[in-house]
Order: sequence, then structure tokens, then C-alpha cells
Amino acid sequence: MSLMMYDGAIQNVIDAFTQLPGIGPKGAQRIAFYLLTADETQVATLASSITNLKEKVKFCNICGNVTETNPCLICRDPRRDKSTICVVEEPKDIMSIERTGLYGGEYHVLGGAINPMSDIGPNDLRIRELLNRLHGDTVQEIILALDPNIEGEATTTYLVRLLSPLGIKITRLASGLPVGSDLEYADEITLGRALTGRLNANPYANAEE
Amino acid sequence: MSLMMYDGAIQNVIDAFTQLPGIGPKGAQRIAFYLLTADETQVATLASSITNLKEKVKFCNICGNVTETNPCLICRDPRRDKSTICVVEEPKDIMSIERTGLYGGEYHVLGGAINPMSDIGPNDLRIRELLNRLHGDTVQEIILALDPNIEGEATTTYLVRLLSPLGIKITRLASGLPVGSDLEYADEITLGRALTGRLNANPYANAEE
Repeated sequence: MSLMMYDGAIQNVIDAFTQLPGIGPKGAQRIAFYLLTADETQVATLASSITNLKEKVKFCNICGNVTETNPCLICRDPRRDKSTICVVEEPKDIMSIERTGLYGGEYHVLGGAINPMSDIGPNDLRIRELLNRLHGDTVQEIILALDPNIEGEATTTYLVRLLSPLGIKITRLASGLPVGSDLEYADEITLGRALTGRLNANPYANAEE
Repeated sequence: MSLMMYDGAIQNVIDAFTQLPGIGPKGAQRIAFYLLTADETQVATLASSITNLKEKVKFCNICGNVTETNPCLICRDPRRDKSTICVVEEPKDIMSIERTGLYGGEYHVLGGAINPMSDIGPNDLRIRELLNRLHGDTVQEIILALDPNIEGEATTTYLVRLLSPLGIKITRLASGLPVGSDLEYADEITLGRALTGRLNANPYANAEE
């Protein structure tokens, strides 16, 4: 008998983990054997964290961020600047921007980007919800912080056209060289963006264009 | 407010997955968001596979392999050759050897290798259980299939000394160039082993030394 698979329970764990992003069959096998000898509490915590996830986590009615309260912690926080909305593709992008510690405004999650190949058009994104937040004159600036790829660019272009008539200031994240990188290894598009978007190196002359 | 962590349930999943081998915080975040939008059934299957693992999986009383029945499927299989025992470090090594499709004998899992740095000596391995299987003259050959690293070599040397007096044939896996590799990139120890262990290239002259 050539035994190519494990007995039921181990194979079930391997199969379930192999379906997760970034985990292959070898990694899943390693995890299964790790769990087999791991502390009971750790295994129980892992299983219950997964079960609780879908029950507890909702999406914020205002910004679309993941949250356990509605509205989310950011939308409810009176210290956040209500005059600026930063538009991102996914909830995890909010975490990335929060980690910079440089932004104190609100967010709006689109839930993706325009992608004709995957049949995702403007109507599949939370664009109507964004427009609803722009009534009145609370919002002074919209920062488009989409991924710097084809889909993100297409969505940025679409939103700039849609939002420009409203007379609200629309900005986008700067493209350029990543900090700590090497000019030699920069691709020509990134280097081109860094060149056209060059800043005055004299800090005293840099205030307002 | 600078929000550096997610709300409870998402952060719990990220924390639990970050503790697994081969998964970092970014990979765990990716999995958490994947699970958030994944099919209910898939998420439930993942959680229950983890819960069932420890309950159902035992170790075979004879060979030490992971199993849901005792003895395990291999030890119970009458078609397996009882005269040969292949000694491995971990249950997952059995799967690797089974995948070759070239072995029809039995196995014995040591549960690790001798490693003074981690305070693992011969008494921490299933060596007494191995000796118990060698009573009578059923077993004709013991194949030592330990990892080709320092700990595996130390354990192999120890077992050769221990088992030699029993008069049973003791063999070990061949060291040499991995198939599909390049001579130029082989390390000198592997290449040295391939050289000293060279085989007669004439298949008709290769039968028995």
C-alpha cells in the first residue's frame, strides 16, 4: 500500500490551511504537526478566534472599515478631523496609513478598485456612500490613497473626474522613490514620477506653491 | 488617536496565526481579511479541523507514527514487509518516504534526534521501543533514514554502535547529488560523499559487491 495522504484529522487540517492565502501544502503540513504537539490552550484559542471572527466583525456603516461597533472607532472619535476623507481600497490600508502617525482625518473604504478583467466596475465600489458623505461643506479635502497599480490608477482617474465638479480639494499620495531604496534599482516609471514630482530642497522656500 | 491594532476579533485571529510556524504578522493579517470575506462553510471547516486534530490523532503504539487507529494503518497492513524497519526522526518523514513509492517495509519513529544543545539524549527518543521490536528473527534489515545534518549523523552513529552487536543488517540512505541539481553548486561535503559513494555505471556489473 502506498500511503500518499495522512489519516483523516491531520489531512483535514492540511487541506483547510492549504486553502488560505500564502500557505502551501508543505507549510500546512508543518502547521498541522506544530498544532499536534502545541499547548491545548493555544490550539483552542486559534480555533475560537476563527469562529468568533465572522460573528463579531461587521463593516462600519459610514466608512466601510471593519469594526465590532457601529459606527467604527475612527468615525466615532470626536478628535478626528471631519474635514478630510482619505479614500482607500481595503480596510487593511487604513491600518497602514494609521501606522504612519501622520493622518488625523477620516477614511472611506471603497472595497476594491475598478478592474474590468475581474468585472468590477464603479457600481461595485462604495462610491455612492462616498458621495453621500460630501453633502454640506464639512469635507474640505479628499485624499485618494489607492494602490499605485493599473486598477488603482484607473479608479483614481475615475474619482477625480467624478469629484472635481463638487469643488472640493482632491489630492493623491505622492509617487517617488521608496525611502531606503537605491536609485540604481528604481524602475523608470517610479523614477520618472520622482523627477516630475520633485520638491524644492530648500525647506524655507517650500511652503506654498 | 493613533490606532495601531485592529478591533478585538480581527486582532485575535492575527495574533493566533502569527504564532504558527512560517506565518508572520503580514501573512496573518492577509489570512484574517481572507477569512472575513470567505464562505461560512470554509471558515467553519477550518475551525473544526483544528479542534478535531488533538482529539482524534494519536501515536501508534508500535511505530510511533500519527494515526487515528491503533496500531496505525501501516503496522496493521499484512502486505507490508515485516523484515525491514526504516527508522525516521518524525512522522512526516514517513510520508516523504511513502511518496517515493519504493519502500514496502515498516517504520519506526524516533521522535527527534540526539541534540545536546537542546538537551535531547538517547533516552528522550523511542530507542527502547525500537529494541523491543527486534526480538526474534523477523527483522532482517534496519534502514537508518535520519536527516543528513549534525543531529541526524550523531543519532545514526549512536544507533549503528547500539544495533551492530545484534547481527542485523544496518543500512543508511545514500548521500550524494540531488537529482536535477548542478555539480557547480554542490557543497564540498555533498560532492565528497557522492564521490566516495560512487556506483558502477555499468548496470550489469552492479548487482552485489
